[in-house]
Amino acid sequence: MTIRVGVLGANGKVGQAVCAAVEAADDLELSATVDQGDPIESFVESKTQVVVDFTHPDVVMNNLKFLLANGIHAVVGTTGFDDGRIAEVREWLAASPETGVLIAPNFAIGAVLTMRFAEQAARFFDSVEVIELHHPNKADAPSGTAYRTARLIADARAAAGVGKSPDATSTELEGARGSDVDGVRVHSIRLAGLVAHQEVLLGTQGETLTIRHDSIDRTSFTPGVLLGVREIAGRPGLTVGLDPFLDL
Amino acid sequence: MTIRVGVLGANGKVGQAVCAAVEAADDLELSATVDQGDPIESFVESKTQVVVDFTHPDVVMNNLKFLLANGIHAVVGTTGFDDGRIAEVREWLAASPETGVLIAPNFAIGAVLTMRFAEQAARFFDSVEVIELHHPNKADAPSGTAYRTARLIADARAAAGVGKSPDATSTELEGARGSDVDGVRVHSIRLAGLVAHQEVLLGTQGETLTIRHDSIDRTSFTPGVLLGVREIAGRPGLTVGLDPFLDL
Amino acid sequence: MTIRVGVLGANGKVGQAVCAAVEAADDLELSATVDQGDPIESFVESKTQVVVDFTHPDVVMNNLKFLLANGIHAVVGTTGFDDGRIAEVREWLAASPETGVLIAPNFAIGAVLTMRFAEQAARFFDSVEVIELHHPNKADAPSGTAYRTARLIADARAAAGVGKSPDATSTELEGARGSDVDGVRVHSIRLAGLVAHQEVLLGTQGETLTIRHDSIDRTSFTPGVLLGVREIAGRPGLTVGLDPFLDL
Amino acid sequence: MTIRVGVLGANGKVGQAVCAAVEAADDLELSATVDQGDPIESFVESKTQVVVDFTHPDVVMNNLKFLLANGIHAVVGTTGFDDGRIAEVREWLAASPETGVLIAPNFAIGAVLTMRFAEQAARFFDSVEVIELHHPNKADAPSGTAYRTARLIADARAAAGVGKSPDATSTELEGARGSDVDGVRVHSIRLAGLVAHQEVLLGTQGETLTIRHDSIDRTSFTPGVLLGVREIAGRPGLTVGLDPFLDL
Repeated sequence: MTIRVGVLGANGKVGQAVCAAVEAADDLELSATVDQGDPIESFVESKTQVVVDFTHPDVVMNNLKFLLANGIHAVVGTTGFDDGRIAEVREWLAASPETGVLIAPNFAIGAVLTMRFAEQAARFFDSVEVIELHHPNKADAPSGTAYRTARLIADARAAAGVGKSPDATSTELEGARGSDVDGVRVHSIRLAGLVAHQEVLLGTQGETLTIRHDSIDRTSFTPGVLLGVREIAGRPGLTVGLDPFLDL
Repeated sequence: MTIRVGVLGANGKVGQAVCAAVEAADDLELSATVDQGDPIESFVESKTQVVVDFTHPDVVMNNLKFLLANGIHAVVGTTGFDDGRIAEVREWLAASPETGVLIAPNFAIGAVLTMRFAEQAARFFDSVEVIELHHPNKADAPSGTAYRTARLIADARAAAGVGKSPDATSTELEGARGSDVDGVRVHSIRLAGLVAHQEVLLGTQGETLTIRHDSIDRTSFTPGVLLGVREIAGRPGLTVGLDPFLDL
Repeated sequence: MTIRVGVLGANGKVGQAVCAAVEAADDLELSATVDQGDPIESFVESKTQVVVDFTHPDVVMNNLKFLLANGIHAVVGTTGFDDGRIAEVREWLAASPETGVLIAPNFAIGAVLTMRFAEQAARFFDSVEVIELHHPNKADAPSGTAYRTARLIADARAAAGVGKSPDATSTELEGARGSDVDGVRVHSIRLAGLVAHQEVLLGTQGETLTIRHDSIDRTSFTPGVLLGVREIAGRPGLTVGLDPFLDL
Repeated sequence: MTIRVGVLGANGKVGQAVCAAVEAADDLELSATVDQGDPIESFVESKTQVVVDFTHPDVVMNNLKFLLANGIHAVVGTTGFDDGRIAEVREWLAASPETGVLIAPNFAIGAVLTMRFAEQAARFFDSVEVIELHHPNKADAPSGTAYRTARLIADARAAAGVGKSPDATSTELEGARGSDVDGVRVHSIRLAGLVAHQEVLLGTQGETLTIRHDSIDRTSFTPGVLLGVREIAGRPGLTVGLDPFLDL
C-alpha cells in the first residue's frame, strides 16, 4: 500500500524536487500539490496522509494548524521555529494525539550522520579538528553546520572528561590554526568548484579516523524528506531534528 | 587512585608497547611483568588488579585459569578463542562472578568505530563500497577487516530491506569493479609507503559519506587496550570484542 | 581589446554553457551564434575571430572548411576526428597558415593536468595504482580517462626502466586487486551521489603522493575552452589535445 | 656496474637509514662509512665514487673540501648553506670540473613534486588553498614546506596575471579562513596520529584538483638520496635542490 503524499510550496525549487522524488518512489503517491493561491483543502479532498512543507515562516503556522486539525501528518523543512511556535504546535498535537509532526533544520542524512558519529567518536581520540569546505560565495565562516558539529564534539569531550587536543604551536602566522569553537579548531576552505563539504578528523596514537560528508547537489535533502514521510505515521507527536528517525 | 596493571608477554613487541603505555598513563601503575619463565604468581604478590595478555594460544588458557582463580581481571589480545575455549572461560567466570574478561581481536578504536559507523549508516544510502589500502607485502586481498566490514554492511542492509547498490556496468575489464562480498564491492589497493587504511564510501542522491581509518603505526592498539584496562572492573563476566566498552 | 568569439551548436547544452561563459568573461565578446538552420556566414559579417564548435561529426568538417577559408580560428570539442580528417584539416590550414585550430577530446583542465602529472611522477615511485569513481549509471569500467591515464603511466615507467609495482598478494578474492591495464591496477567505484572523479596513488618508502580530480558539474569544460579561445591566435596550425596550450 | 657509495655521518639516524638503503639497492655498493673520529681518507682508499653527507654545519665544509679535492661526487642533506658557503663550493668545483655536488634541503620526492605540480597548476584555477597536517608536537604553523609552497603558488599566479582567489566571506570567526601567505590561504591542522602531510586544493568552475603528499616515516628521504647518488656523476658542478634531477 502506498502512502498518499501532498506537497506545500510545490512550485518552489525545493518543492519541485520533493514532488519529483515522491513521484519517483514506488511506495509513495503524489496526491495533491499546493502553492500560493491554491486551496489547502485539496489535501483533505485527496485523502492525503502526509504533507511536506517547504514554504515560509509567515505561512507555515497556518499550514500546520490546518493539517493537524484534519489529522494529516507533517514533515516540515521551513525555518523559523522558536520556543513559542514549538509550544503552539505541541498544543495542536495534544488535540490530535495520533498525528505526527517532524520539524528538521537539515534533511541531508549524511550531514546528520556526520554530526552524530563525530559526537560518538570524540571522546576516544586525543585530538579532533573540523575542516569545512564550501564554494567561494558563502558569506559566513565557519559554516553553521561546522559550528554546530564542533560544539557537539566539545560537549561530548567535556562530558567524558577528555582534555583539550594537544598543540605545541609556539610560532603561528595569524590564523594558521583556524578558529576556536569551544576548544575545537575549525578551518574554513573557500574554493571555486566546491559545493558543501565537511570533514571531521580524529586522531590518537598511530591512527586517525576521518568522517567526511560531500554534498554536491541541492537535492541531497530529498532522501531525508522521504525517510520522514515513510516513518512519520509511526511516530505521533512532535519530533525536532531528523536524528530520532535514524534509530542509531 | 591508580589501577595496578600487570602485563603477560611483557618482552614481546606488543607487550613492550603495552608496558610503555601503562607507564605513561597517570591513572595506571605497572605493577608486575611476566614473560616465559617468570612466575605468574607475581601478579598476586604485587596486588595486580588487571592483567593484559598478549601471549600465545598455547599458554593463554592456563594464564586465564590462574588469573580468574585469583580474582584478577583480564584484557586479552591473544588469538585462538574458539567456542570451546569461550565456554571454558565462562565456566571459570561463573566461579568468580565479580571478575571481568575482555577478549578482542582488534583493539584499534578507529577500526572498531569504522565498522560500527558503516553498519549504522549502511541502510540510509543507495550505494556502499569499501576500499582498503595496505603495504604491498600483504598476502591476502581483501584484508580481514575489510571483509568483515563488508559483511556487517551487507547484513545491515538485508535487515533493513535495502536492495543492492545500483550498477549499470555493462562493459567491464576483468576485475575493474573489485571483489563481491555478499553484494558489497570491496577494492584492494597495494602501495609502497602505506601501512593499513580503510575507506567506506556511502552515497545517495547528491551526497556521499566517507568513513576512513588510517593506521600508520603498530602501536595503534594501545589506546584500546588502556580503555579496556580502565573499564574492565565495572564490567564483570565475559565481553567479546571492544564494541560494548565504547557505549555507542 | 576583447576577442570576438562565435559559437557553433549554440543551442545545445554544451553550446549554451559556452555562450554563457563567453558572455561572463571581460576579455571576450560573443559576436555571433549559429545552430542548425542558421547561416554560418554570420561569423564573417560579425568579424568573429574565434569560433567554438561543439556540434556533430556529420557537420564539423564543413564548418571547419568554411572557417579556415575565411581565416577564422577554431576551438573544437566535436568528436570523430580520425587520421583522414586530421590530414584534411592540415591541408586547409596549409592554405591559411596564420589560422589556428585546436581539437581536443577533453577540455577539463583538471583532467588534463592529472594525466600529465601522473605521467611525470610515475617513474619516481615503486607503486602506482588508479582509482576512478563515477555515478552508477556509467556503462564502462574502467572509465576511458582512467584507462588512458594508466597507459600513460605504464609507458612512462617502461621508458624509465622502472619495474612493476610490488605485490605479494597470494590469496585473492576474485577481482579484489582491480583490473590490470598494462601492469597498472585500475579500480572502478560506482556510487550514487558521485559524478566523475579520479585518483592516482603513487607510493615509495615512507611516503605517498595522491593526485585527485573531482568533476562535479557538466560545465567543467568551459575554463579549458576559454583558455583555447584566448591562446589560439598565437598558435597557428593544428594542435590536438589541450596539453600544449598549458605550457607545462 | 655498481656505483661505490660512501656515507658521512653513518652512525646518525639518517646516516643509518642511508646505509641500509644503499645496501638494499642492487646497483649500489656501500664502500665506506665515516663518522666522528673515523679517517675521511677511507673514501679514497675504498675508491668511493659518491659520498652522501648528513652531518653538521660545523663539519660539512671540511668534508666537501676533501671530497672535491679528491674528485669524489657529493650528495648533501646537511643544512646551513648560505651564499658564502655556496660560493666557496663553486670555487672548489671550478678546480674539479668533472665532479658533481647536489645540496638539497628536502629529499622527499613527493614533497618536491607537490611543490612543482602546485606551481605549474596554479594559474589555471580561480582558487587555490593549502592545508598542511602534522603531529601535535610541531612548534611552527604553517610548516616551512607549506609556506614555501604557498609562495611558489603566489609567484606563479602573479607571473600569469591571475587575480586573488574569490572569497565572499563577510562574517568570520577569527582565524576561520586560515593564514594569508602572499594572498594564498594556508590552514594548519595538528592531530595526534599524523606525521607530515600536505594538500594543495585548486578549483575552478565545476572541478577541483587536489595534490596530496603523505609522509609517514622518517625514511621517506631515502629514495631522493638514492636518485641523487645515481645521477650525480652525469651532472658535474653544483646543483641546489632536487628538482633539476627530476627532469620534469
